Amino acid sequence: MHEKEYGIINSELIYNGPVKLRLDTFRVNGKIFTKEVVEHNASVGIIPITNNGEIVLIKQYRHAVDEYLIEIPAGKIENEENPIEAAKRELEEETGYRGELTPLTQCYLAPGYDTEMMYLFIAKDICKEDNSLLKDDDENISNMIVKLDDALCYCFNGYIRDCKTITAILLYYTSFNKTK
Amino acid sequence: MHEKEYGIINSELIYNGPVKLRLDTFRVNGKIFTKEVVEHNASVGIIPITNNGEIVLIKQYRHAVDEYLIEIPAGKIENEENPIEAAKRELEEETGYRGELTPLTQCYLAPGYDTEMMYLFIAKDICKEDNSLLKDDDENISNMIVKLDDALCYCFNGYIRDCKTITAILLYYTSFNKTK
Repeated sequence: MHEKEYGIINSELIYNGPVKLRLDTFRVNGKIFTKEVVEHNASVGIIPITNNGEIVLIKQYRHAVDEYLIEIPAGKIENEENPIEAAKRELEEETGYRGELTPLTQCYLAPGYDTEMMYLFIAKDICKEDNSLLKDDDENISNMIVKLDDALCYCFNGYIRDCKTITAILLYYTSFNKTK
Repeated sequence: MHEKEYGIINSELIYNGPVKLRLDTFRVNGKIFTKEVVEHNASVGIIPITNNGEIVLIKQYRHAVDEYLIEIPAGKIENEENPIEAAKRELEEETGYRGELTPLTQCYLAPGYDTEMMYLFIAKDICKEDNSLLKDDDENISNMIVKLDDALCYCFNGYIRDCKTITAILLYYTSFNKTK
Protein backbone atom coordinates (compact mmCIF):
# COMPACT_ATOMS: atom_id res chain seq x y z
CA MET A 1 0.00 0.00 0.00
CA HIS A 2 1.45 3.39 -0.89
CA GLU A 3 0.98 6.39 1.35
CA LYS A 4 -2.02 8.35 0.26
CA GLU A 5 -2.43 12.08 -0.08
CA TYR A 6 -4.64 13.06 2.82
CA GLY A 7 -5.79 16.30 4.38
CA ILE A 8 -8.61 17.68 6.50
CA ILE A 9 -10.51 20.52 4.85
CA ASN A 10 -13.07 21.30 7.55
CA SER A 11 -14.27 19.93 10.90
CA GLU A 12 -17.63 21.13 12.21
CA LEU A 13 -18.80 20.36 15.76
CA ILE A 14 -22.47 19.38 15.45
CA TYR A 15 -23.13 18.48 19.09
CA ASN A 16 -21.07 18.84 22.25
CA GLY A 17 -21.95 16.63 25.22
CA PRO A 18 -20.71 13.45 26.91
CA VAL A 19 -20.98 11.99 23.39
CA LYS A 20 -19.89 14.52 20.73
CA LEU A 21 -20.59 14.56 17.00
CA ARG A 22 -18.38 16.22 14.37
CA LEU A 23 -18.77 16.41 10.63
CA ASP A 24 -15.35 16.22 8.93
CA THR A 25 -14.60 17.04 5.32
CA PHE A 26 -11.30 15.65 4.07
CA ARG A 27 -9.43 14.95 0.87
CA VAL A 28 -8.02 11.52 -0.03
CA ASN A 29 -6.07 11.11 -3.27
CA GLY A 30 -7.72 14.16 -4.80
CA LYS A 31 -11.31 13.22 -3.88
CA ILE A 32 -13.32 14.96 -1.19
CA PHE A 33 -15.34 13.08 1.46
CA THR A 34 -17.59 14.16 4.32
CA LYS A 35 -18.04 11.83 7.29
CA GLU A 36 -19.58 11.91 10.75
CA VAL A 37 -17.20 11.24 13.65
CA VAL A 38 -18.58 10.31 17.08
CA GLU A 39 -16.20 11.50 19.80
CA HIS A 40 -16.27 9.50 23.00
CA ASN A 41 -13.78 9.34 25.88
CA ALA A 42 -11.49 6.36 26.06
CA SER A 43 -12.95 3.70 28.33
CA VAL A 44 -12.16 0.61 30.39
CA GLY A 45 -13.61 -2.89 30.61
CA ILE A 46 -12.74 -5.42 33.31
CA ILE A 47 -13.17 -9.19 33.40
CA PRO A 48 -13.30 -10.09 37.12
CA ILE A 49 -12.28 -13.67 37.96
CA THR A 50 -13.25 -15.23 41.30
CA ASN A 51 -10.89 -17.50 43.21
CA ASN A 52 -12.95 -20.41 41.82
CA GLY A 53 -12.16 -19.32 38.26
CA GLU A 54 -15.66 -18.00 37.62
CA ILE A 55 -16.44 -14.72 35.88
CA VAL A 56 -18.43 -11.86 37.42
CA LEU A 57 -20.72 -10.35 34.79
CA ILE A 58 -23.41 -7.70 35.11
CA LYS A 59 -26.89 -7.53 33.72
CA GLN A 60 -28.22 -4.07 32.95
CA TYR A 61 -30.83 -2.33 30.86
CA ARG A 62 -29.33 -0.44 27.91
CA HIS A 63 -31.52 2.42 26.75
CA ALA A 64 -29.80 2.82 23.34
CA VAL A 65 -30.65 -0.74 22.28
CA ASP A 66 -33.77 -1.18 24.48
CA GLU A 67 -32.59 -4.48 25.95
CA TYR A 68 -31.15 -6.00 29.09
CA LEU A 69 -27.60 -7.06 28.23
CA ILE A 70 -25.03 -9.22 29.97
CA GLU A 71 -21.69 -7.45 29.97
CA ILE A 72 -18.37 -7.12 31.72
CA PRO A 73 -18.19 -4.07 34.00
CA ALA A 74 -17.06 -1.12 31.91
CA GLY A 75 -17.26 2.62 31.62
CA LYS A 76 -15.53 5.70 30.39
CA ILE A 77 -12.33 7.16 31.75
CA GLU A 78 -13.13 10.37 33.59
CA ASN A 79 -10.93 13.46 33.34
CA GLU A 80 -7.51 13.09 34.97
CA GLU A 81 -7.90 9.35 35.57
CA ASN A 82 -5.51 6.89 34.00
CA PRO A 83 -6.93 3.63 32.64
CA ILE A 84 -6.12 1.52 35.70
CA GLU A 85 -7.68 4.05 38.08
CA ALA A 86 -10.83 4.11 35.96
CA ALA A 87 -10.89 0.30 35.87
CA LYS A 88 -10.68 0.06 39.68
CA ARG A 89 -13.47 2.60 40.05
CA GLU A 90 -15.79 0.99 37.49
CA LEU A 91 -15.19 -2.51 38.87
CA GLU A 92 -16.19 -1.37 42.34
CA GLU A 93 -19.11 0.84 41.24
CA GLU A 94 -20.66 -1.78 38.99
CA THR A 95 -19.96 -5.05 40.82
CA GLY A 96 -19.00 -4.13 44.39
CA TYR A 97 -15.67 -6.00 44.00
CA ARG A 98 -12.08 -4.86 44.30
CA GLY A 99 -9.17 -6.85 42.92
CA GLU A 100 -5.71 -6.95 41.39
CA LEU A 101 -5.83 -5.59 37.86
CA THR A 102 -3.61 -6.67 34.95
CA PRO A 103 -3.85 -5.18 31.43
CA LEU A 104 -5.26 -7.61 28.86
CA THR A 105 -5.33 -5.60 25.62
CA GLN A 106 -6.83 -2.46 24.15
CA CYS A 107 -9.14 -2.01 21.19
CA TYR A 108 -11.42 0.37 19.33
CA LEU A 109 -15.13 -0.47 19.51
CA ALA A 110 -16.36 1.06 16.21
CA PRO A 111 -13.38 2.72 14.52
CA GLY A 112 -15.22 3.35 11.26
CA TYR A 113 -16.88 6.40 12.85
CA ASP A 114 -16.24 6.42 16.61
CA THR A 115 -13.08 7.45 18.49
CA GLU A 116 -13.70 5.28 21.58
CA MET A 117 -10.71 3.14 22.60
CA MET A 118 -11.30 0.62 25.39
CA TYR A 119 -8.56 -0.65 27.71
CA LEU A 120 -9.32 -4.18 28.90
CA PHE A 121 -8.13 -5.58 32.23
CA ILE A 122 -8.36 -8.86 34.12
CA ALA A 123 -9.18 -8.55 37.82
CA LYS A 124 -8.01 -11.41 40.05
CA ASP A 125 -8.01 -11.99 43.83
CA ILE A 126 -11.31 -10.15 43.92
CA CYS A 127 -13.27 -9.52 47.11
CA LYS A 128 -16.63 -7.92 47.71
CA GLU A 129 -16.83 -4.56 49.40
CA ASP A 130 -19.88 -3.08 51.07
CA ASN A 131 -20.37 -0.17 48.71
CA SER A 132 -24.06 -0.07 47.96
CA LEU A 133 -23.88 3.72 48.08
CA LEU A 134 -21.40 3.96 45.20
CA LYS A 135 -23.66 2.79 42.40
CA ASP A 136 -24.59 5.28 39.70
CA ASP A 137 -28.25 6.20 40.01
CA ASP A 138 -29.12 5.41 36.43
CA GLU A 139 -27.52 1.98 36.45
CA ASN A 140 -29.95 -0.76 37.42
CA ILE A 141 -27.29 -3.40 37.65
CA SER A 142 -27.23 -6.91 39.04
CA ASN A 143 -24.25 -9.28 39.24
CA MET A 144 -24.13 -12.73 37.66
CA ILE A 145 -21.38 -15.20 38.54
CA VAL A 146 -20.82 -17.53 35.61
CA LYS A 147 -18.58 -20.55 35.04
CA LEU A 148 -15.98 -20.05 32.32
CA ASP A 149 -17.39 -22.84 30.13
CA ASP A 150 -20.89 -21.38 30.45
CA ALA A 151 -19.63 -17.89 29.60
CA LEU A 152 -17.95 -19.33 26.50
CA CYS A 153 -21.17 -21.06 25.50
CA TYR A 154 -23.10 -17.77 25.93
CA CYS A 155 -20.66 -16.06 23.51
CA PHE A 156 -21.57 -18.57 20.80
CA ASN A 157 -25.31 -18.94 21.41
CA GLY A 158 -26.16 -15.23 21.50
CA TYR A 159 -27.08 -15.06 25.20
CA ILE A 160 -24.12 -12.68 25.55
CA ARG A 161 -24.19 -10.23 22.68
CA ASP A 162 -21.90 -7.41 23.58
CA CYS A 163 -18.70 -7.33 21.54
CA LYS A 164 -16.28 -6.13 24.26
CA THR A 165 -17.64 -8.82 26.61
CA ILE A 166 -17.13 -11.59 24.04
CA THR A 167 -13.61 -10.28 23.37
CA ALA A 168 -12.75 -10.22 27.09
CA ILE A 169 -14.16 -13.69 27.81
CA LEU A 170 -12.43 -15.26 24.81
CA LEU A 171 -9.10 -13.56 25.52
CA TYR A 172 -9.25 -14.86 29.07
CA TYR A 173 -10.35 -18.35 27.97
CA THR A 174 -7.63 -18.56 25.32
CA SER A 175 -4.84 -17.37 27.61
CA PHE A 176 -6.09 -19.69 30.37
CA ASN A 177 -6.03 -22.71 28.04
CA LYS A 178 -2.62 -21.83 26.63
CA THR A 179 -1.00 -21.72 30.06
CA LYS A 180 -2.66 -24.86 31.43
CA MET B 1 -33.64 -7.77 39.58
CA HIS B 2 -37.17 -6.36 39.66
CA GLU B 3 -38.70 -4.67 36.65
CA LYS B 4 -38.14 -0.96 36.80
CA GLU B 5 -40.53 1.83 36.03
CA TYR B 6 -39.36 3.23 32.73
CA GLY B 7 -40.68 5.68 30.17
CA ILE B 8 -39.44 7.96 27.41
CA ILE B 9 -40.34 11.61 27.93
CA ASN B 10 -38.77 13.17 24.83
CA SER B 11 -36.58 12.19 21.88
CA GLU B 12 -34.92 14.96 19.89
CA LEU B 13 -33.16 14.29 16.58
CA ILE B 14 -29.96 16.36 16.69
CA TYR B 15 -28.41 15.22 13.41
CA ASN B 16 -29.70 13.09 10.55
CA GLY B 17 -27.15 11.45 8.26
CA PRO B 18 -25.54 8.04 7.68
CA VAL B 19 -24.76 8.30 11.41
CA LYS B 20 -27.63 9.90 13.36
CA LEU B 21 -27.63 11.47 16.81
CA ARG B 22 -30.67 11.73 19.12
CA LEU B 23 -30.99 13.20 22.58
CA ASP B 24 -33.43 11.14 24.67
CA THR B 25 -34.97 12.15 27.97
CA PHE B 26 -36.43 9.27 29.97
CA ARG B 27 -37.60 8.42 33.45
CA VAL B 28 -36.26 5.45 35.44
CA ASN B 29 -37.70 4.73 38.88
CA GLY B 30 -38.91 8.30 39.29
CA LYS B 31 -35.63 9.97 38.21
CA ILE B 32 -35.15 11.75 34.91
CA PHE B 33 -32.10 11.20 32.67
CA THR B 34 -30.98 12.69 29.37
CA LYS B 35 -28.64 10.67 27.15
CA GLU B 36 -27.23 10.84 23.65
CA VAL B 37 -28.04 7.90 21.37
CA VAL B 38 -26.00 7.30 18.20
CA GLU B 39 -28.16 5.61 15.56
CA HIS B 40 -26.29 3.44 13.08
CA ASN B 41 -27.54 0.75 10.69
CA ALA B 42 -27.00 -2.84 11.65
CA SER B 43 -23.83 -4.16 10.06
CA VAL B 44 -21.92 -7.29 9.09
CA GLY B 45 -18.41 -8.58 9.70
CA ILE B 46 -16.88 -11.60 7.94
CA ILE B 47 -13.89 -13.75 8.88
CA PRO B 48 -12.70 -15.28 5.58
CA ILE B 49 -10.77 -18.56 5.93
CA THR B 50 -8.58 -19.83 3.09
CA ASN B 51 -8.38 -23.50 2.21
CA ASN B 52 -5.04 -23.53 4.10
CA GLY B 53 -6.81 -22.36 7.27
CA GLU B 54 -5.40 -18.85 7.08
CA ILE B 55 -7.40 -15.68 7.69
CA VAL B 56 -7.85 -12.87 5.17
CA LEU B 57 -7.67 -9.53 6.96
CA ILE B 58 -7.63 -6.01 5.57
CA LYS B 59 -5.53 -3.02 6.44
CA GLN B 60 -7.16 0.36 6.01
CA TYR B 61 -6.83 3.93 7.19
CA ARG B 62 -9.59 4.93 9.64
CA HIS B 63 -10.24 8.64 9.65
CA ALA B 64 -12.13 8.65 13.00
CA VAL B 65 -9.15 7.27 14.92
CA ASP B 66 -6.42 8.58 12.57
CA GLU B 67 -4.70 5.21 12.26
CA TYR B 68 -4.23 2.32 9.87
CA LEU B 69 -6.04 -0.65 11.42
CA ILE B 70 -6.06 -4.36 10.69
CA GLU B 71 -9.64 -5.60 10.60
CA ILE B 72 -11.96 -8.24 9.25
CA PRO B 73 -13.96 -7.06 6.23
CA ALA B 74 -17.12 -5.36 7.54
CA GLY B 75 -19.68 -2.73 6.72
CA LYS B 76 -23.21 -1.62 7.23
CA ILE B 77 -26.29 -3.34 5.91
CA GLU B 78 -27.78 -1.23 3.14
CA ASN B 79 -31.53 -0.74 2.76
CA GLU B 80 -33.45 -3.87 1.74
CA GLU B 81 -30.43 -6.17 2.20
CA ASN B 82 -30.55 -9.00 4.69
CA PRO B 83 -27.41 -9.70 6.75
CA ILE B 84 -26.09 -12.50 4.53
CA GLU B 85 -26.51 -10.45 1.34
CA ALA B 86 -24.65 -7.58 2.96
CA ALA B 87 -21.91 -9.96 4.14
CA LYS B 88 -21.42 -11.34 0.61
CA ARG B 89 -21.24 -7.83 -0.83
CA GLU B 90 -18.81 -6.50 1.79
CA LEU B 91 -16.57 -9.56 1.54
CA GLU B 92 -16.26 -9.11 -2.21
CA GLU B 93 -15.95 -5.30 -2.13
CA GLU B 94 -13.29 -5.25 0.55
CA THR B 95 -11.23 -8.36 -0.18
CA GLY B 96 -12.11 -9.48 -3.70
CA TYR B 97 -13.13 -12.91 -2.39
CA ARG B 98 -16.39 -14.84 -2.57
CA GLY B 99 -17.16 -17.78 -0.34
CA GLU B 100 -19.68 -19.87 1.57
CA LEU B 101 -20.99 -17.90 4.54
CA THR B 102 -22.12 -19.35 7.88
CA PRO B 103 -23.45 -17.21 10.76
CA LEU B 104 -21.06 -17.04 13.72
CA THR B 105 -22.83 -14.80 16.23
CA GLN B 106 -24.21 -11.27 16.53
CA CYS B 107 -23.29 -8.51 18.95
CA TYR B 108 -23.63 -4.84 19.76
CA LEU B 109 -20.44 -2.78 19.38
CA ALA B 110 -21.07 0.00 21.93
CA PRO B 111 -24.54 -0.57 23.43
CA GLY B 112 -24.11 2.09 26.13
CA TYR B 113 -24.92 4.78 23.55
CA ASP B 114 -24.92 3.27 20.03
CA THR B 115 -27.60 1.16 18.33
CA GLU B 116 -25.25 -0.69 15.95
CA MET B 117 -25.67 -4.48 15.95
CA MET B 118 -23.13 -6.48 13.94
CA TYR B 119 -23.85 -9.90 12.43
CA LEU B 120 -20.67 -11.97 12.21
CA PHE B 121 -20.09 -14.66 9.59
CA ILE B 122 -17.38 -17.16 8.70
CA ALA B 123 -16.57 -17.43 4.99
CA LYS B 124 -15.08 -20.73 3.81
CA ASP B 125 -14.21 -22.18 0.38
CA ILE B 126 -13.22 -18.69 -0.63
CA CYS B 127 -11.91 -17.78 -4.06
CA LYS B 128 -10.64 -14.54 -5.50
CA GLU B 129 -12.69 -12.69 -8.10
CA ASP B 130 -11.44 -10.02 -10.46
CA ASN B 131 -13.46 -7.15 -9.09
CA SER B 132 -11.09 -4.23 -8.87
CA LEU B 133 -13.91 -1.96 -10.05
CA LEU B 134 -16.14 -2.73 -7.06
CA LYS B 135 -14.06 -1.09 -4.34
CA ASP B 136 -15.51 1.94 -2.59
CA ASP B 137 -13.57 5.02 -3.60
CA ASP B 138 -12.82 6.15 -0.07
CA GLU B 139 -11.50 2.79 1.08
CA ASN B 140 -7.76 2.47 0.62
CA ILE B 141 -7.70 -1.19 1.47
CA SER B 142 -5.09 -3.89 1.15
CA ASN B 143 -5.43 -7.59 2.00
CA MET B 144 -3.25 -9.45 4.50
CA ILE B 145 -3.30 -13.24 4.70
CA VAL B 146 -2.39 -14.32 8.21
CA LYS B 147 -1.88 -17.69 9.89
CA LEU B 148 -4.37 -18.43 12.65
CA ASP B 149 -1.69 -18.61 15.36
CA ASP B 150 -0.24 -15.28 14.21
CA ALA B 151 -3.71 -13.68 14.19
CA LEU B 152 -4.22 -14.91 17.74
CA CYS B 153 -0.90 -13.46 18.78
CA TYR B 154 -1.84 -10.09 17.22
CA CYS B 155 -5.04 -10.04 19.33
CA PHE B 156 -2.96 -10.22 22.51
CA ASN B 157 -0.03 -8.00 21.57
CA GLY B 158 -2.07 -5.03 20.33
CA TYR B 159 -1.11 -5.32 16.64
CA ILE B 160 -4.79 -5.98 16.00
CA ARG B 161 -6.84 -3.53 18.01
CA ASP B 162 -10.32 -3.60 16.65
CA CYS B 163 -12.85 -5.24 18.96
CA LYS B 164 -15.03 -6.98 16.32
CA THR B 165 -11.89 -8.38 14.69
CA ILE B 166 -10.60 -9.81 17.98
CA THR B 167 -14.04 -11.29 18.68
CA ALA B 168 -14.24 -12.91 15.24
CA ILE B 169 -10.70 -14.35 15.37
CA LEU B 170 -11.14 -15.73 18.88
CA LEU B 171 -14.59 -17.21 18.12
CA TYR B 172 -13.12 -18.95 15.10
CA TYR B 173 -10.01 -20.09 16.99
CA THR B 174 -12.06 -21.41 19.91
CA SER B 175 -14.56 -23.27 17.75
CA PHE B 176 -11.70 -24.66 15.63
CA ASN B 177 -9.89 -25.99 18.70
CA LYS B 178 -13.05 -27.45 20.22
CA THR B 179 -13.82 -29.50 17.13
CA LYS B 180 -10.27 -30.73 16.53
